[in-house]
Amino acid sequence: MEITCSNFKENLPEIQKAIENSLFVSIDCEFSGLNIVRNINAFDTPKEYYKKMRTNCKDFLVMQYGLSTFRYNQEENNFIQSSYNFYIFRRPINRNIPDNRFLCQSSSIDFLISHSFDFNKLFKEGLPYLNQIETDKYKDNVDQAYQKALEIIESNANEVEPDIIPIPENAQQFMEDVKQQIEVFLKTEETEMQLPKCNAFFRRLVYQIKESEYFGKISVETRQIEKDRVLFVTKLKSPEEEKQLAKKKYEEQKQELDDFIGFTKVLKIIIESGKLVIGHNLCLDFFHTVDKFLMPLPESYEEFKQMSHSLFSRVLDTKYMSSNEPFKELISSTVLGQLLEIVSKKPFGLPEIVIEEPSKGYTTDCSKEHEAGYDAFITGLCFLGMWKHLGLLDNRSDCKTFQNMDLLEPYMNRLFLMTLTDSQYIHLSGEDLQPSRDHVFHLTFPKEWKLSNVQQLFSPFGNIYVSWIDETSAYIALYKKDQAKMAYTTLRNGDGYSLKTFAARQVQLSVENGLRITSPTPSKKRKSSDSPAHVKSKRVDNSAINSALSKMTIQPETMVVEREDNAKSKVFQEDDNWT
Amino acid sequence: MEITCSNFKENLPEIQKAIENSLFVSIDCEFSGLNIVRNINAFDTPKEYYKKMRTNCKDFLVMQYGLSTFRYNQEENNFIQSSYNFYIFRRPINRNIPDNRFLCQSSSIDFLISHSFDFNKLFKEGLPYLNQIETDKYKDNVDQAYQKALEIIESNANEVEPDIIPIPENAQQFMEDVKQQIEVFLKTEETEMQLPKCNAFFRRLVYQIKESEYFGKISVETRQIEKDRVLFVTKLKSPEEEKQLAKKKYEEQKQELDDFIGFTKVLKIIIESGKLVIGHNLCLDFFHTVDKFLMPLPESYEEFKQMSHSLFSRVLDTKYMSSNEPFKELISSTVLGQLLEIVSKKPFGLPEIVIEEPSKGYTTDCSKEHEAGYDAFITGLCFLGMWKHLGLLDNRSDCKTFQNMDLLEPYMNRLFLMTLTDSQYIHLSGEDLQPSRDHVFHLTFPKEWKLSNVQQLFSPFGNIYVSWIDETSAYIALYKKDQAKMAYTTLRNGDGYSLKTFAARQVQLSVENGLRITSPTPSKKRKSSDSPAHVKSKRVDNSAINSALSKMTIQPETMVVEREDNAKSKVFQEDDNWT
Repeated sequence: MEITCSNFKENLPEIQKAIENSLFVSIDCEFSGLNIVRNINAFDTPKEYYKKMRTNCKDFLVMQYGLSTFRYNQEENNFIQSSYNFYIFRRPINRNIPDNRFLCQSSSIDFLISHSFDFNKLFKEGLPYLNQIETDKYKDNVDQAYQKALEIIESNANEVEPDIIPIPENAQQFMEDVKQQIEVFLKTEETEMQLPKCNAFFRRLVYQIKESEYFGKISVETRQIEKDRVLFVTKLKSPEEEKQLAKKKYEEQKQELDDFIGFTKVLKIIIESGKLVIGHNLCLDFFHTVDKFLMPLPESYEEFKQMSHSLFSRVLDTKYMSSNEPFKELISSTVLGQLLEIVSKKPFGLPEIVIEEPSKGYTTDCSKEHEAGYDAFITGLCFLGMWKHLGLLDNRSDCKTFQNMDLLEPYMNRLFLMTLTDSQYIHLSGEDLQPSRDHVFHLTFPKEWKLSNVQQLFSPFGNIYVSWIDETSAYIALYKKDQAKMAYTTLRNGDGYSLKTFAARQVQLSVENGLRITSPTPSKKRKSSDSPAHVKSKRVDNSAINSALSKMTIQPETMVVEREDNAKSKVFQEDDNWT
Repeated sequence: MEITCSNFKENLPEIQKAIENSLFVSIDCEFSGLNIVRNINAFDTPKEYYKKMRTNCKDFLVMQYGLSTFRYNQEENNFIQSSYNFYIFRRPINRNIPDNRFLCQSSSIDFLISHSFDFNKLFKEGLPYLNQIETDKYKDNVDQAYQKALEIIESNANEVEPDIIPIPENAQQFMEDVKQQIEVFLKTEETEMQLPKCNAFFRRLVYQIKESEYFGKISVETRQIEKDRVLFVTKLKSPEEEKQLAKKKYEEQKQELDDFIGFTKVLKIIIESGKLVIGHNLCLDFFHTVDKFLMPLPESYEEFKQMSHSLFSRVLDTKYMSSNEPFKELISSTVLGQLLEIVSKKPFGLPEIVIEEPSKGYTTDCSKEHEAGYDAFITGLCFLGMWKHLGLLDNRSDCKTFQNMDLLEPYMNRLFLMTLTDSQYIHLSGEDLQPSRDHVFHLTFPKEWKLSNVQQLFSPFGNIYVSWIDETSAYIALYKKDQAKMAYTTLRNGDGYSLKTFAARQVQLSVENGLRITSPTPSKKRKSSDSPAHVKSKRVDNSAINSALSKMTIQPETMVVEREDNAKSKVFQEDDNWT
């Protein structure tokens, strides 16, 4: 079901009920863009990955948020789902809502429009949101304005009298007319009167004659009427009436604030419910969810982990799940659409799925790929297919499988990290992996060096994997891990380059970061033509490669070198969740 | 008439004809945003203004471009107009079109959607464009790719053989199937065959068996079929056939480049025609026009003036025209819509306007405000109203008035500058004004200073106009200009602050700029609450103010201090051309 400004309020209670009654919920986001620079390195640590992604996250918007709730019906052994597709856009209605400058990425916009994303609906009817910092600031402003208004009424003080501006010739007739209207108005029973439209300078003059000629008799207020700012004259009231008015305005403003919290309310309901949250390739969605709607992503990675785990006690990334045991061998592609196909067939199989209300759910044949609500829905299905399979492997009935979440423990709170080698993930509720990188070196070299120079340097030690950092540095991994010590001893004191162990490089980085907060502008990337991401020395026989490969846990995707120059960039233009 | 990808090509000849037959054209743009920071100071020079606006210009997009052509029919003494409303959006179709990250400003998006701007049409059917730098680079890439292809064919060289990746178990069945299909294909008359869809890793394996098992027999190519990348197998051809194919591909790519030049072609036609170009509050539109479609705005202001005048020999800003003699006294508002109302009535009057073809023009009662094409159209009308009036003042018949452009000389090539004092403008074809700023000082002071401290300091010298730069500096202008020398002598050596003449400050700035290229991040602005833009000391009587005011040529708009805190920001959220 589509949720916009026009039906959010009326549907919120039902959405809340759907979340609270669910066994789990699944989510998916569509963004205005994915990345500013693509500088993730295969040998980044999760912490480095976080810092880079945080930068990429900050300036883009979440434009659509999909939520699917799955309620388990034990009697029928089926799942009842409701799906919601929220349009998210915050218009700068008042000064408490910042007039954002946000980034869009052409390829992302193109991707969305080619999947029938409705930008007009987004910008016209998108839901507002406020993270906690914004909410607090907004509330402070409203409170302070009320306090100030009360003080003014009580001290019976007028605002400081402005300086008198002479009335220019072209305004004199207008001002005479205004004065006459005010005189007539003061004799009537009416409480307020609208003045004719005029420009800002004329409005300034009207405020001036209010002070100079109608002091204590009227107040003047500017209101927004459609596209225009229009003056209203009101007869002055008693302090008690003024206080009541101020109170009323205060209540209205608090209500307005509550309205602006908008979509954030849905996330608060999810958090309060403590339900398991599922996403596919969840990392970026999760970062944005926290950053935009809850708390701005902190600079510190440890703080981020702590904060987000305290918000979401249980999250599960189906990309991580499907890439690990026992699914790794059974699942040839973890791309979302293909994953669904796989888990729909033997040896997998989906439990029966029922739509709670026809207007509020999807079926898998509705061709809504890349609509956030649909993607959230099929993510939930993929999860169910795998969960059910875990139960089968453990000889459990579905009913028993879905009764508790013990089988899911190995996947819980682990966010899949694209591009990184050695199966790294972000572990939200524990220590990250500390895989040995004793066979990885950090090499700096002259600008003129090409891949072949690097290969030549390392040729005595077998095949290498080169992951460029910039024009003069790269990480080098040995396929023959047992050669690491020998390679380091031999090459450490060479001329014209500098070689560090991975560990030494990490120490260096943390010292540098301790000294100064570096801005994350990456150095110029090597052109793809001089550096296929995955290359091995030619001189070594294939059996050695096979053996080295079998020891590596690199995902097949990270090893691909396509013949077309733009293949990689094309892949990245696609929806991250579909990879 | 709306022009998108789907009708651009067929309409271009007619648009060209309309431009070439016109007496003048008028333009208007809609943007994805107006400014990143609003740090224009009332005492900026045109050069400083340019540098700031250039920064603001760089990251936003032109999303709609309006063009109106006005042809004079001497016999009937009327103007025949055609209007075009171009949607502009560049999708990153191939690697020669950068995958832009562009900025949007929420208030601008909100403004456009509230005026029925169709973002779906924009993103789906927008026209591409290429500035000269982009065109040259694109052409180089196409040429080089062709040369390389020819070299490969002639040297009969194969691309470097990739390293062999072992075929994992889950791919073995697939690869067997592929091989079988290729065997069958080689025995047929077919020239090409599509392979089943597969992921990037599987595609890599297919390339591998092409080398290892079908060397010299087939070539394999990946093509984009809708959302998927699909492999095609082709039987290998003779070198002659290969060359012909390369030539054909080259021609196709050149045609593609020509298509991508898109909207830029319209501007090239305007430039070649040498026609007078009209715009209202033209500055930002002009900057974007040059930057996006012709040549990136250079850092140097002088270079910009030279370059843009060499492109556009005659431009006229109706905001500048209507703000100067003899219109200044006759025109109470230079806001576009109001200006049209004024010049439609006595003592003004519009010449008769005829639409060339009903589908290709607007009338003034069609309620299309803020559609770029409509705004361009009414800008043309405003211009005609004023031009006609100049003729009347000179006792000319319309026919004589429109026969040559001598009456327009005082307004030619002058871009109106919002916010600046003393009637500054950018003079594209000559020296900018050098108004005396002997009565203006640059003051730096402690962070704790408020407006009242500044006022107190200058109180012996009458009223002052304070234009804040940041939290610790401001420009101070004396209303009593004759007090300037005395004020400087008295205050120059004071304690706790530092005072410079405006001229000395300019020298300081140019020295600083000579030493380093500063990034244009502005210092923190003063909050509006401590600094109404326009304030005078309280101690001086009103007659002095009146007299000082009458000597100043500040536009009324720059003097407004509205009571509501957010009034100013609201004004700026509106379309710049409508101000």
